[in-house]
Parts: sequence; structure tokens; C-alpha cells
Amino acid sequence: MNKTDTLNLKDNIRRIPEFKGVVFWDITPLLKDPNCFRTTIKQIADHYRNKNIEVVAATEARGFIIGAPVAYELNAGFVPIRKKGKLPYKCIDLTYQKEYENDTIQIHEDAITKGQTVLIIDDLLATGGTAKANLELVEKIGGKVAGIAFIVELDYLGGRKMLGDNYEIFSLERKLTPDS
Amino acid sequence: MNKTDTLNLKDNIRRIPEFKGVVFWDITPLLKDPNCFRTTIKQIADHYRNKNIEVVAATEARGFIIGAPVAYELNAGFVPIRKKGKLPYKCIDLTYQKEYENDTIQIHEDAITKGQTVLIIDDLLATGGTAKANLELVEKIGGKVAGIAFIVELDYLGGRKMLGDNYEIFSLERKLTPDS
Repeated sequence: MNKTDTLNLKDNIRRIPEFKGVVFWDITPLLKDPNCFRTTIKQIADHYRNKNIEVVAATEARGFIIGAPVAYELNAGFVPIRKKGKLPYKCIDLTYQKEYENDTIQIHEDAITKGQTVLIIDDLLATGGTAKANLELVEKIGGKVAGIAFIVELDYLGGRKMLGDNYEIFSLERKLTPDS
Repeated sequence: MNKTDTLNLKDNIRRIPEFKGVVFWDITPLLKDPNCFRTTIKQIADHYRNKNIEVVAATEARGFIIGAPVAYELNAGFVPIRKKGKLPYKCIDLTYQKEYENDTIQIHEDAITKGQTVLIIDDLLATGGTAKANLELVEKIGGKVAGIAFIVELDYLGGRKMLGDNYEIFSLERKLTPDS
């Protein structure tokens, strides 16, 4: 509680040398620090404050932790994107290729009204596969993507290139190598 | 955007007659309505505003959607409780009995400092099994539980009785029967 509003992300994102076969960037230290959590959410919200965001869409489960308070701060609605079989109402599906298999994500068919301005949020931009699937799903249902925001972007995995030049990409912290 | 601050939960919690074998109460209409989402979060935060909540703990995945903005509004830290194998750092485990099997939940061992005041949040109180496991896990790690809050409480499943009289339980909407 004695920190200033200056966000020191580097000290609050923990590098785990190996988790599920990769270097893993753990945001839980950032979340548990009240000022750091608050500043993180505010910085993302401030970046989009004048862009008339009507809906924040985020993907389970870590994306919910960032996306829901950003929606709250922006006075927007919140829409969950989930893995297949988790949403209880009629859904729109999108299947995309992952490294070793296909994955299907879903959104409720009434989640977004055609033409609504949507901000997509996730905790991490890695290879960009999931982010691209989220974009496509939101557009498939008629949403207008105003931007896509992350806490951490792993430059060394090239996700930004995969998303292409048509989207505004915002990340609070960029990691140039797996060792940084 | 044209609603007042009066929260009409009934109209924004959708009854799904059958999902995974039970009547399911779907909060996604509430989440996607900016005023309804905002009022929901504020009502929970207001209830705990003078109770010095230092940490909000919530369980994946829907619990994150409510818990994270409540933490934000209360200027508290946020701590995720997750199913086994999802958290990347050293964990404290708790195994509990579910209807047909056992389940294990985890929290990072450094997530809560001994004596910190913790609010536990989930979207739904059903039989109380998961809620009780969350309480026990937070206490095992040294947290002092100030309360446990839900959007919807299913009175007909008796979760409140299972949690006992030692905890303050707060829910915004109570369903007396599966048909209400």
C-alpha cells in the first residue's frame, strides 16, 4: 500500500523458468498488490477511455481477471469467451489450430450486438494464436474490434506480427527474450 | 445504458432449464449490461467497504469475473484459487469431496500473508461444497475470512447451512426453488 502510482511491472511479474514446458510469466504478484493491480487496470482503461468501448471481451481464465475490472472502469459490459462446453446458452463457435491440436472457443450468440465497439483483453500475447481466434470470433458475431490489450507481450514469439496491421495492439510490458 | 442504478437481477439472470444435468442460472446477461454489471459489483463492494478487506480471493472461472472488479473497487489485492495444475508457482492444496469424485484446488503459497483480511467471492452458492473448500484453503494459508459473497444463492440446495454460522454470507439474489 506504500507504493506510488508508478507501475513497476518488472518487479511484479514473476519469471517461472519452466511451467508446462515453457518459460512462464506469472502475473499473480501483480494481482495481489492492491496498488499494482489498480494501476495496471487503470492504465489499460485510460488508453481506451475515449474510444467508446461498449463491450470488453476476454478469454478464460486469466483474461477474466484483467478484462472484468477494465470493463467496470470503462462502464462497459463484459462478455466471456470460453472453451467449448462451458457456456450454457446458444453459442457461436470458432475452431483454430494450435501447435499440436485444434481448439474450439465459444461466445454466446446474443453476447454482442452487431456493430458494437469491442475491446479484447488477455493477460499475455505469446504466439498470437488465441488472440487471433478471439478477434475472429468477435468479428464473426458482428463486433467492431477497437483494440486488443495485454499485460505482457512476448516479443520473442512474434504474436504482434501474426495479428497483422489491422488492429491496435496495446501491451503494458514487452519481453524481448525469454531471459529478460 | 438507460437503466437506473436499481438492480433488476431477476431480469438479467437467465434460467437455463438444463445444462450439465441441472437447472443453470446464467449470469452472462447481467455481465453484458454495463449498468447492471456495474451496480452488481458496487453493491457487493459497498457491503464490505468498511471491513478493511485486504485481499479478494475467487475461484475460476466465473468467480474471477466478479471477484476481480470487487477487489479493484475495494482497493484490495486479488488472489486466484484454481484447479490443480493451473498455478505456476509453489502451491498449498486442498482436496474436497464432490458428488461423484474428489477435487483439488490450489492457491499460491505466497498469495496471502498470515492474518490478512480476506473476502471470498464466487458467482453462485449451490450445495456449498466449493465455497467450503475455498474457506478452508484461505484459512489453511493463514487468511482471516471476513465474509463470502455470491451473486446468486440457491436456497433449495442448502449451501448456507453447509457453511455454518461462523461466516458472514452475502448474496444479491436468492432462488427458493429451481423454478423461480
